Amino acid sequence: MNAQSWHVVSESFPASCKVYRPGRMHPGVRVPMREIALHPASGEPPLTVYDASGPYTDPAVTIDIEAGLARLRAEWIAARADTEAYPGRHVQLIDNGLTAGARAAPEFALRRAPLRARAGRAVTQLAYARAGIVTPEMEYVAIRENLGRERALGTARDGNSWGAAIPDHVTPEFVRAEIAAGRAILPANVNHPESEPMIIGRNFLVKINANIGNSAVTSSTAEEVDKMVWAIRWGADTVMDLSTGRNIHTIREWILRNSPVPIGTVPIYQALEKVGGIAEELSWEIFRDTLIEQAEQGVDYFTIHAGVRLPYVPLTVSRVTGIVSRGGSIMAKWCLAHHRESFLYEHFEEICEICRAYDVSFSLGDGLRPGSIADANDAAQFAELETLGELTRLAWARDCQVMIEGPGHVPMHKIKENMDKQLATCGEAPFYTLGPLTTDIAPGYDHITSAIGAAMIGWFGTAMLCYVTPKEHLGLPDRNDVKTGVVTYKIAAHAADLAKGHPGARERDDALSRARFDFRWQDQFNLSLDPDTACAFHDATLPKEGHKVAHFCSMCGPKFCSMRISHEVRAEARAQGLREMADKFRAGGSELYVPAGKES
Amino acid sequence: MNAQSWHVVSESFPASCKVYRPGRMHPGVRVPMREIALHPASGEPPLTVYDASGPYTDPAVTIDIEAGLARLRAEWIAARADTEAYPGRHVQLIDNGLTAGARAAPEFALRRAPLRARAGRAVTQLAYARAGIVTPEMEYVAIRENLGRERALGTARDGNSWGAAIPDHVTPEFVRAEIAAGRAILPANVNHPESEPMIIGRNFLVKINANIGNSAVTSSTAEEVDKMVWAIRWGADTVMDLSTGRNIHTIREWILRNSPVPIGTVPIYQALEKVGGIAEELSWEIFRDTLIEQAEQGVDYFTIHAGVRLPYVPLTVSRVTGIVSRGGSIMAKWCLAHHRESFLYEHFEEICEICRAYDVSFSLGDGLRPGSIADANDAAQFAELETLGELTRLAWARDCQVMIEGPGHVPMHKIKENMDKQLATCGEAPFYTLGPLTTDIAPGYDHITSAIGAAMIGWFGTAMLCYVTPKEHLGLPDRNDVKTGVVTYKIAAHAADLAKGHPGARERDDALSRARFDFRWQDQFNLSLDPDTACAFHDATLPKEGHKVAHFCSMCGPKFCSMRISHEVRAEARAQGLREMADKFRAGGSELYVPAGKES
Repeated sequence: MNAQSWHVVSESFPASCKVYRPGRMHPGVRVPMREIALHPASGEPPLTVYDASGPYTDPAVTIDIEAGLARLRAEWIAARADTEAYPGRHVQLIDNGLTAGARAAPEFALRRAPLRARAGRAVTQLAYARAGIVTPEMEYVAIRENLGRERALGTARDGNSWGAAIPDHVTPEFVRAEIAAGRAILPANVNHPESEPMIIGRNFLVKINANIGNSAVTSSTAEEVDKMVWAIRWGADTVMDLSTGRNIHTIREWILRNSPVPIGTVPIYQALEKVGGIAEELSWEIFRDTLIEQAEQGVDYFTIHAGVRLPYVPLTVSRVTGIVSRGGSIMAKWCLAHHRESFLYEHFEEICEICRAYDVSFSLGDGLRPGSIADANDAAQFAELETLGELTRLAWARDCQVMIEGPGHVPMHKIKENMDKQLATCGEAPFYTLGPLTTDIAPGYDHITSAIGAAMIGWFGTAMLCYVTPKEHLGLPDRNDVKTGVVTYKIAAHAADLAKGHPGARERDDALSRARFDFRWQDQFNLSLDPDTACAFHDATLPKEGHKVAHFCSMCGPKFCSMRISHEVRAEARAQGLREMADKFRAGGSELYVPAGKES
Repeated sequence: MNAQSWHVVSESFPASCKVYRPGRMHPGVRVPMREIALHPASGEPPLTVYDASGPYTDPAVTIDIEAGLARLRAEWIAARADTEAYPGRHVQLIDNGLTAGARAAPEFALRRAPLRARAGRAVTQLAYARAGIVTPEMEYVAIRENLGRERALGTARDGNSWGAAIPDHVTPEFVRAEIAAGRAILPANVNHPESEPMIIGRNFLVKINANIGNSAVTSSTAEEVDKMVWAIRWGADTVMDLSTGRNIHTIREWILRNSPVPIGTVPIYQALEKVGGIAEELSWEIFRDTLIEQAEQGVDYFTIHAGVRLPYVPLTVSRVTGIVSRGGSIMAKWCLAHHRESFLYEHFEEICEICRAYDVSFSLGDGLRPGSIADANDAAQFAELETLGELTRLAWARDCQVMIEGPGHVPMHKIKENMDKQLATCGEAPFYTLGPLTTDIAPGYDHITSAIGAAMIGWFGTAMLCYVTPKEHLGLPDRNDVKTGVVTYKIAAHAADLAKGHPGARERDDALSRARFDFRWQDQFNLSLDPDTACAFHDATLPKEGHKVAHFCSMCGPKFCSMRISHEVRAEARAQGLREMADKFRAGGSELYVPAGKES
């Protein structure tokens, strides 16, 4: 029994059950989805939705945080026979901020020897894709992404994808080809076999990331594990552990062993802790050691701020908000203090060698992203972006998977320029943006100021959107903030999917709209991104069970319910054979005049 | 003493004071603005912001709901000598849903004889504008819109206005010309002299509307007055009273007498109440009587669903969500039941005569707007839009001011088409949209699904955005929902102003960003749209007063505060004369390479 008290939510969603779709090429593949049952009166089959929540929402699985999740990819990794187990780095006191005694968090009990590539091998999904191999991971994401596409076949595509090549049907081969081209990544560290494969790329569904992590000021291990489970419950496709301060290694271990989604980190944070928070004392050796420590634990992607180069730092001096990336400011300080080029930039190829040995994807950090509307799309930001393009090519040459981080704060009229420049500069490597916030004047509501920008840049081609919570700029997000941030970003990502014209994306909208029009209140709640809130808001004024079948709500009341009246209109119109009239009207080019008082 | 207990908030915002800018052409003009004082350390003057909150935030004004607000436009109206007082329509029991006795709300005690145009006169701002007259109302809005423009003079314009003609400086003559061209409206019923003039048009700041109103199910007079005051406190530029059910006339009277912003209504709601909720029993006579009743009270704009014509009704039969406009569904039902063309359409010119006599602006209702993503931009919607264009020309011919209502639910890729079609079809009459919602899958969060669409359509040219609250589709918004909706829509409108490139619009963003970078926490809160929430979120983790001058927050903690480090970087860079380096870098086309370890 552990001293910690775990309080993760592990229950299914209302009217929902977990289903698994089997692979064809790889029989071991079982892709989880959520089926939402509808009221029999609907005459509709259950609606299947994408499900990032992992085993936590499967009642058939017993959750044991102390034991961690099942290692579903372990066999696939072993079957490739290109990795080897080795003793691994010894965990040191410094890895946890020198925390010992009562302040030390209990360690995750099970410790396995980490895997790494055998000498000379690249164990990345990119290397396999280039070799023409369709891995089980690739088939997994093909099935996952195909959701709704079969039923959408034959219906007209409706959207504007701004040049993206979204397929009618996602085949495993399409997934392979997109990864091989560098247009998509499948983050999957060999030491994180608990992860359910997912893909990040412009020709796939738009994904979202949730940041969690303690800070020196607040929060514990149990809280962070709970936040991770809570974030994926509401739809986070990946989670970044941005912990700083004490117990950083231990917290990450608990998160990884219990996370079914890829975990990203910013290794410079831990490296900085190891040198007591003094940026100048960072060194390549300490950083390198931290990368290996985290790669052995199973981190799936690293934010590396190697684009913050010495000559760019002066470009930030006249900015309104200087450098707002933590990693960016740390590296800028290091560069200036030493009058040297960044060690991340100079040792980038060595970093690639590490990533290649564990399949850690790069998330090339935008250390010079704008922190205000005033600084958007400026010289510093775009100079760094050029370097990120250069680094992308270096990483690709070593079979490493790459995505590119983006801003930040950008007014609406500059978002498209940003997206287009990223695609051109970085060879279509997936873009991964924070928001962007479209105005600076609403602290406390920056999930909203940024959802506007996120939806737009997602539509334009960004592959993954990093959420922003209501607490942005003000404090550390709590559990409620995490949920609000995730749901808000699911909205942005889905709005982008609709606008891009992903086949089948509109299925859930249409099912919910039909439920709404038919007064199937419970179906409307169940089909929504957040059934609890939808139901609670309805019940705030009409709490009785009987009201859930009522043909009105408190917004308009029974007499003024447009939907109720519209049903009467529909019945009347049908009785009058007006459907025929409509056809005539359409055929006549909308000019048909029906004289008052006459039927035609 | 009245039986009701009034609980409106009447206090100023933190660090804020009300200032009044005088008119030059019209000495009686005093335009209210809010000055936010900044910390002396900032070295910055107070920031002046647009202020729709009326006398409620002026400590020099004693608020007396029983007496109503001062009648600031009364003299201007009288001076034009084109109106006459007359006894007016007698208020009837049927005006309040036959409510009497204990259920009847107390009446507003003061009753004045209403004004109307003298025979043959048009008393609309459009008529004056066409006659070349710059009214005090026009000068008022010119001063109001000019905010920040003087300081912005000389700085480069930054934005994409999609063809709008946004001036560097707003003159009273510019206001007049825009109204004369029909591109803007200044809603100002002669019987609502309490209103502070404001303008709605594509070449002015984007405005927002908040809907309030009781329903048959819930809410009272005092609550509705409070909601109105609450909505304008947070920034609503106009308020629509959508009350149905009991006491509808009385509630409206209380709202109008205490509202400094234009009030809009949908008269068909009250007309329907007068016929017991039976759409078929509506008649032109009852509707006409309702228009006069409301015009005499001072309603500033009427939503009139005259575009819902009989031949369009069949176009809605195959829709996923039929007709979702209350007024639209009522009129469709009437048309079908009588097999007749809409009486609103047939009597439209008579409606114009009424509007012209009181200066009630038209808000031509989109009764056939889409209620789901599936129905967006369909034949029914665009057929009605053509008719709204036809009606606009009829209204303009009678000197009536017109704006056009728009959807609703529209995926991002169809928003621009909607805007462009409205501009082309309706001769650039201002567009006034509800959202639009960009997905249907998030009931409980529709303020967010719609803020995305609202910001975009505002950027593209919509002049006023009707808010959507979190309760949309689920129930009647309460006070908190009203605030959330208003703040969310202020965000959307401001993001649009930034993207359109309104001179001076960025002033508040920049001031707040500077405060953020300088760790002037209190300034950051005070400059935000919602100081209370920003401060509360900060204090949730760092409540001590000392933390409000701390150079970090709980999000990153002291060691990882990028802004703190960035200040050190800035100081260091300046010490190293790197500013000069930056210039060289820029001059060299970003290609300058600085060898590691050397200063240049």
